[in-house]
Amino acid sequence: MANAKRMGSLLLRLIAFGATLTAVIVMVTARDKATFFTVSYEARFSDTPAFKYFVVAYTIVSIYGFLVLFLPSESLLWRLVVALDLVFTMLLTSGASAALAIGYVGKKGNPNAGWLPICGQVPKYCNQATVALVAGFIGLIIYTMLVLHSIHAVLNPLLLQKS
Amino acid sequence: MANAKRMGSLLLRLIAFGATLTAVIVMVTARDKATFFTVSYEARFSDTPAFKYFVVAYTIVSIYGFLVLFLPSESLLWRLVVALDLVFTMLLTSGASAALAIGYVGKKGNPNAGWLPICGQVPKYCNQATVALVAGFIGLIIYTMLVLHSIHAVLNPLLLQKS
Repeated sequence: MANAKRMGSLLLRLIAFGATLTAVIVMVTARDKATFFTVSYEARFSDTPAFKYFVVAYTIVSIYGFLVLFLPSESLLWRLVVALDLVFTMLLTSGASAALAIGYVGKKGNPNAGWLPICGQVPKYCNQATVALVAGFIGLIIYTMLVLHSIHAVLNPLLLQKS
Repeated sequence: MANAKRMGSLLLRLIAFGATLTAVIVMVTARDKATFFTVSYEARFSDTPAFKYFVVAYTIVSIYGFLVLFLPSESLLWRLVVALDLVFTMLLTSGASAALAIGYVGKKGNPNAGWLPICGQVPKYCNQATVALVAGFIGLIIYTMLVLHSIHAVLNPLLLQKS
């Protein structure tokens, strides 16, 4: 039973690692050329600070997610992993929220501020950024589940002791 | 000792509640009129989806923070508060990150996307949004400390049992 649970959590971590890595790769390779009159311009993630932050945050968590996969099951460090999971989940939340807020302006624009949507000019870039965001949110949801599950697992025996 | 700790955590919660409430009030009251030629326009937080999300997220957490202040110290619900703190801290992270990403574009613009900064036109609105963001981040930092402290407190006895 404990073994099945461990395998399940390891599988979740593997999927989460895949999702965060996909988010980074898709975002970094997102490019599209737009031509305004005679000036041609290539849109990249590094044009937008929020997307740069997204890539940095998801790269850090991907490295962490990769390393945790190789932590032996009897290691005492697993206790530390609960706290690290929490910190890195907050990093994902922050990166995904910032990128989503900017991506929304890119798609819909903000007429009140006079910011025009750019997806019409660089549709390929826009679609890839959307895919990266979806992969990013999948990774975020899995990490949130892992954190809530760890907290539940840690609190539950204490709750039983009390009652 | 346990009592002093409880008072300390209650004081932190009181400051966090004050910070999140301040963030909401300052953001909601942020207004400034700009005149373009003959058209006058009033900037408000509700012009920007990310700021609306910030206000909703911080309002929810302010209500929660207010209610927790009145939870009796012997209540078993305190165990649940660890998980709720975590969920609401993630909500704050998300709201603050989205609002910061948009606020950054408002201040600096994004030349690559052709989005111009708007703070020159509506400086009062911009300053109030900045104050709201600072208050928001103070609240977020305190909640993060509370969550990490709860996890530490819960994990520590388990660590001692193991060693």
